[in-house]
Amino acid sequence: MVSNPAFLLSGSARVASPFNLGPPDGRVAGDGTMMSEVDAWWSARTSAYPYVVSRIPFAELDGWRFEPESGNLVHETGRFFTVEGLHARGDDGVVWEQPIIHQPEVGILGILVKEFNGVLHCLMQAKMEPGNINVVQLSPTVQATRSNYTRVHRGAVPRFLDYFWGPSRGQILVDVLQSEQGAWFWHKHNRNMVVKTTQDVPEHPDFRWFALDEVRQLLRVDNLVNMDSRTVLSCMPIWRSQETPSSQDAFHDGLLRSYEARGGWPALHTETEILSWFTEMKAHLEWSARLVPLSKVSNWQRGSDELVDDDAARFRVIAVRVEAASREVAGWTQPLLAPCGQGVAAFLARPINGVLHVLAQVRPEPGLLDIAEIAPTVQLPGAAGAGAPEEPAPFVDAVLSADASQIRYDVVQSEEGGRFYHAETRYLVVDVGEQFPLEVPDAFRWLTVRQLINLLRHGHYLNVQARSLLSCLHSLW
Amino acid sequence: MVSNPAFLLSGSARVASPFNLGPPDGRVAGDGTMMSEVDAWWSARTSAYPYVVSRIPFAELDGWRFEPESGNLVHETGRFFTVEGLHARGDDGVVWEQPIIHQPEVGILGILVKEFNGVLHCLMQAKMEPGNINVVQLSPTVQATRSNYTRVHRGAVPRFLDYFWGPSRGQILVDVLQSEQGAWFWHKHNRNMVVKTTQDVPEHPDFRWFALDEVRQLLRVDNLVNMDSRTVLSCMPIWRSQETPSSQDAFHDGLLRSYEARGGWPALHTETEILSWFTEMKAHLEWSARLVPLSKVSNWQRGSDELVDDDAARFRVIAVRVEAASREVAGWTQPLLAPCGQGVAAFLARPINGVLHVLAQVRPEPGLLDIAEIAPTVQLPGAAGAGAPEEPAPFVDAVLSADASQIRYDVVQSEEGGRFYHAETRYLVVDVGEQFPLEVPDAFRWLTVRQLINLLRHGHYLNVQARSLLSCLHSLW
Repeated sequence: MVSNPAFLLSGSARVASPFNLGPPDGRVAGDGTMMSEVDAWWSARTSAYPYVVSRIPFAELDGWRFEPESGNLVHETGRFFTVEGLHARGDDGVVWEQPIIHQPEVGILGILVKEFNGVLHCLMQAKMEPGNINVVQLSPTVQATRSNYTRVHRGAVPRFLDYFWGPSRGQILVDVLQSEQGAWFWHKHNRNMVVKTTQDVPEHPDFRWFALDEVRQLLRVDNLVNMDSRTVLSCMPIWRSQETPSSQDAFHDGLLRSYEARGGWPALHTETEILSWFTEMKAHLEWSARLVPLSKVSNWQRGSDELVDDDAARFRVIAVRVEAASREVAGWTQPLLAPCGQGVAAFLARPINGVLHVLAQVRPEPGLLDIAEIAPTVQLPGAAGAGAPEEPAPFVDAVLSADASQIRYDVVQSEEGGRFYHAETRYLVVDVGEQFPLEVPDAFRWLTVRQLINLLRHGHYLNVQARSLLSCLHSLW
Repeated sequence: MVSNPAFLLSGSARVASPFNLGPPDGRVAGDGTMMSEVDAWWSARTSAYPYVVSRIPFAELDGWRFEPESGNLVHETGRFFTVEGLHARGDDGVVWEQPIIHQPEVGILGILVKEFNGVLHCLMQAKMEPGNINVVQLSPTVQATRSNYTRVHRGAVPRFLDYFWGPSRGQILVDVLQSEQGAWFWHKHNRNMVVKTTQDVPEHPDFRWFALDEVRQLLRVDNLVNMDSRTVLSCMPIWRSQETPSSQDAFHDGLLRSYEARGGWPALHTETEILSWFTEMKAHLEWSARLVPLSKVSNWQRGSDELVDDDAARFRVIAVRVEAASREVAGWTQPLLAPCGQGVAAFLARPINGVLHVLAQVRPEPGLLDIAEIAPTVQLPGAAGAGAPEEPAPFVDAVLSADASQIRYDVVQSEEGGRFYHAETRYLVVDVGEQFPLEVPDAFRWLTVRQLINLLRHGHYLNVQARSLLSCLHSLW
């Protein structure tokens, strides 16, 4: 909705503030300061990190190499991650192969929350990731690998980790393993945590408290709130902390009832019916997937500076150099996965009996731990490989040809900038209204927002696109 | 508690009735008939299936062979299952290899239930499995592979499948994917279903209605209610259907409160704390496991009629011939996994604030989809391989040296007779009383029975031993 301002790229050429969402004057940030101070903070943070990220040939990677036998791209220490091969078989016996990122470690994505004057605030971080289209994005309090937090390598401990780990941590509100992109990661899941503290929290220039409502409002800005923040926010079983919104129309009324439908407002399906649908769809899938040596992957070509599918339609594995002159770490090199083209993740939404429902599907992706999770109505590109005959996905037209009046949310967000290069997804919520058919294909079901939130107490129900989109939906009231 | 009567083996030499649990005269079965009629039914069923199961050399298996290159034991059609190799690495870098059963298909284990005179009944089946120590056991209404129920192979459709699958099925009460033995199966899970019908159900001599309470009482008999029944029964969110038991002592009072503790009676930990404990224990495990060719497995020896570990301490892969003279299917041959020695699965239990809690652990097993699930307090043998230095497991002494007065449940049950040969586990519940320490190692937590039941709405929380034991616990009041 709001274009990504150019100043986010350079830290100098200020075009517009990404925080300038409300009335221009007098808007008060969660900690009582004016939004203009938030602007100044963001501007300072982006200036503080004048990183330059540039593509390099694979041969210029430091410590990374293609193993002679397997062809896998690995780091000489065995740390970080590897790029290996995947052999997948879908239904109807369709077979394809592709590279995939393998990183078996479980990390912590944690947001620290605290009440100020009775209002719940989140400690957010201005954090640089090399694949981010604008380098710095708004990130969780902590993004830590297991090596970080168990101090196996005795390296620097991430700031504020003590609030999430160890005897002095705060009150745990959320702690759940959630999956990441099943088309790009092999069996990856991270620990999504929200921890509440009542202690004084030291200040640091990279960190700032935002009211939960403010963070959600920032989800209406392109490429500002990073993927890790979005997935943690989606798991937070709390919605607007300050006020009940005034009714605007049937969509908003339905959304309010959807949040609050703990039983008073009826959902189309019971929880038992939804769990049974999920079980049945997974039980009937005949997909299988396994890791293979990268050298065995067919229909992909490795050049001096990229590994890409023959049609250049899926993604590239590339190498980048990160130069960060002003920091103690002088810079580094690493591989990144660069998708070909922008993704789409969209919920169709409609009121049913006055309660907003969104249309979800059970959707297979070869890298998911149990192959299938609940996804948005439309998720593009498909999971099958280049050359695999993909059927046209249902409801794509309803999203991409929607009338402007139906579009309630349409924002481009970034996927994880530590592993993906300029990976953008267009997230949409389309209000199709009460005339839209309730009858849907077997893989689809209409669920209330509350039903999605309840499933998120447990891992591996909602995929990362569905969780991201759910957090975006929270920005709509 | 009740020894397995010899007549179950032969169908003729009647020693005692396994159903004779209550007063000998006048006991009424759920459908209004006398228990003596149930005896007659069981006796007739076991006589109807005079199977002889005998060990044979691998060379006499029909259609099964060791693949030349991989060494995997496979069927020539590619159906049924394979025996492959597993390479596992535990914490502290301990590495071991072993054979493992791979059967990627998801099957249905389903119990059909119906009310008669307001009392919930289960349609149970007298079913033969070649690995059963007594050949016939009490089984769910349906045990079907996906090939059966999607009719891919156009074979005979399992009886009563229509109640679980397709447009005319009944009301679904339970439908969840649950794991099976992670020491013996690779990523195996089956669909556990309970479906309620109000229709007339055709009679068949192999099937009989039992009141839910009766089925649970039968769990006090050795080797009678099979593993598939036990796991489905554990997922049934319903306890005694007929009456509230009279209070007998603190254990029983605590058990009643544990079932009913929906909030009124306090549990030691909140649901959020339990989910966080589960997440943290899984996140910190450094186990990994992958399939390898069986020929690459070291420290196991393949002879003409068995594949066994060097110490003959873990299990054997053997071959059997099943001869069933009186049936249309003349017989068949198949591999089975035969454990060395009896297993143990035990809950320590104690009241906390008047509510019975059981001590559960998060326990890794290499074949589980996500490596670790919640297990009983003690589960023997350990998951690590022969030769792996296993630490003595906590609480083993408290179970195996328990005073007779502390033992509330002590029954030998069989694991799945279609894949395992004479695989017996001694299931115990030990009442350790209020003096037992609440302080336990990190991997352990005290949970109420209600908390375990709630977790069973979702897959992959409780392992099959914990589910079995929970169903056994339901027999105690």
